[in-house]
Amino acid sequence: MMDEAALSAFLLRDFAQVAQDFRLERSDAAGLSLRLRVGDQHLRPGGTVSGPSIFALADVAMYLAILARIGPVALAVTTNCSVDFLRKPEAGRDLLAEARLLKLGRRLAVGDVMVFSEGGTEPVARASLTYSIPPRT
Amino acid sequence: MMDEAALSAFLLRDFAQVAQDFRLERSDAAGLSLRLRVGDQHLRPGGTVSGPSIFALADVAMYLAILARIGPVALAVTTNCSVDFLRKPEAGRDLLAEARLLKLGRRLAVGDVMVFSEGGTEPVARASLTYSIPPRT
Amino acid sequence: MMDEAALSAFLLRDFAQVAQDFRLERSDAAGLSLRLRVGDQHLRPGGTVSGPSIFALADVAMYLAILARIGPVALAVTTNCSVDFLRKPEAGRDLLAEARLLKLGRRLAVGDVMVFSEGGTEPVARASLTYSIPPRT
Amino acid sequence: MMDEAALSAFLLRDFAQVAQDFRLERSDAAGLSLRLRVGDQHLRPGGTVSGPSIFALADVAMYLAILARIGPVALAVTTNCSVDFLRKPEAGRDLLAEARLLKLGRRLAVGDVMVFSEGGTEPVARASLTYSIPPRT
Repeated sequence: MMDEAALSAFLLRDFAQVAQDFRLERSDAAGLSLRLRVGDQHLRPGGTVSGPSIFALADVAMYLAILARIGPVALAVTTNCSVDFLRKPEAGRDLLAEARLLKLGRRLAVGDVMVFSEGGTEPVARASLTYSIPPRT
Repeated sequence: MMDEAALSAFLLRDFAQVAQDFRLERSDAAGLSLRLRVGDQHLRPGGTVSGPSIFALADVAMYLAILARIGPVALAVTTNCSVDFLRKPEAGRDLLAEARLLKLGRRLAVGDVMVFSEGGTEPVARASLTYSIPPRT
Repeated sequence: MMDEAALSAFLLRDFAQVAQDFRLERSDAAGLSLRLRVGDQHLRPGGTVSGPSIFALADVAMYLAILARIGPVALAVTTNCSVDFLRKPEAGRDLLAEARLLKLGRRLAVGDVMVFSEGGTEPVARASLTYSIPPRT
Repeated sequence: MMDEAALSAFLLRDFAQVAQDFRLERSDAAGLSLRLRVGDQHLRPGGTVSGPSIFALADVAMYLAILARIGPVALAVTTNCSVDFLRKPEAGRDLLAEARLLKLGRRLAVGDVMVFSEGGTEPVARASLTYSIPPRT
């Protein structure tokens, strides 16, 4: 329904406040990859990326993954998000979220997200998210 | 171990970047209440408080509730956070988080948090959080 | 919609296979209390109540708490269950689940459950559950 | 640490009560596959596999995946399990759980599990689990 250009434009328009923090890296049938351009505003003392920043990355990635499939008319709402924080992100690196949809039902969409430090092979965090999808007409 | 004044001072010193967003309302044996002074930086289009802001509120509230019991030497790390988003927060109101510890073990602390719009009786969100506690000497 | 007698009858009829494991202790506006009559079939080696038995207790308790409010016509389906296992249950004691509804929407019901060993004051487990509610006509 | 034969023997000895319900299909560096031989005792009215049965499958699969890496001396304990129920399992089919470890730390192990109806390509359930690992000497 929405290709990479359409998703990037949507991000810029509807998430204007934080759009510059993110960059869509890829969107295809297998899922979606979103970059968090890590800046000072995302860091906790000690240089770790904060939990809320990782949460926001996972949430935006999954939101875009749903829009890619159902189009921009939807106003999906996050109903649950569960995050496992696995490892300290590497200092000075961006984070990459790999999101995939596990279910796209009429009322609920469920997916999971793995978050990596750029260049890293072991996940920094894992998240699963559920969205409520408004009735489609 | 830490009373309300000590917790507020800790918040100001160790969470300097976001300390002005929060205010400790209460800390006692039953748990802890933390206010999010909702500002433009916490809002999504439409005036809703963003998911990451609610996540941050729950996370800081539980972190302080643990410190209240084990003191400021600890460097507890969030290992899991699961949030249910229940209702849209009321526009123009602060959020209040009520945190309680359910377990304070030697290695793990677990608690839950209910988030309300100020003056509201039905929860906006519910969160449960697990922290890994470093070995105490 | 359904009082304690109606809920107990429903349990016996619709959960015939496991109904004898449970007993409804209370159902009122504040929530619902359900007992797991702990038997050998619920135990792991060492005498601990198994995780699946605790899961089942929480799931049935919340299911009944929803039915108490919307009546027996519904076929609510569990969509998410997150359980924190906090302490080893005390040997030779039944478990009591205290369930409360946090949200009863048109499409989703969300609640949490605290599980105690009978006579104990510290929770053995905490669970949150989400159910999808079929359209009501 | 433990190969497929050792894991199957462990299952038979330490989970004697339920061992006949499960069969280890595969264990290698990528993870572990465990079968639930679905029988009447796992079914809810209507022929669906019950939530507790799916929970048990995910829990045993992840437990074995940890043992495969740290050996049989460990007494790992489940501290959290979060399950998303995605689709109704197909009637008359076994379930297969694909478990992978995302982190094996000194104190915590975290992994996720995808559950499929045999022959199906879309997941019936997704679970993430955390285990506390006892100090190794």
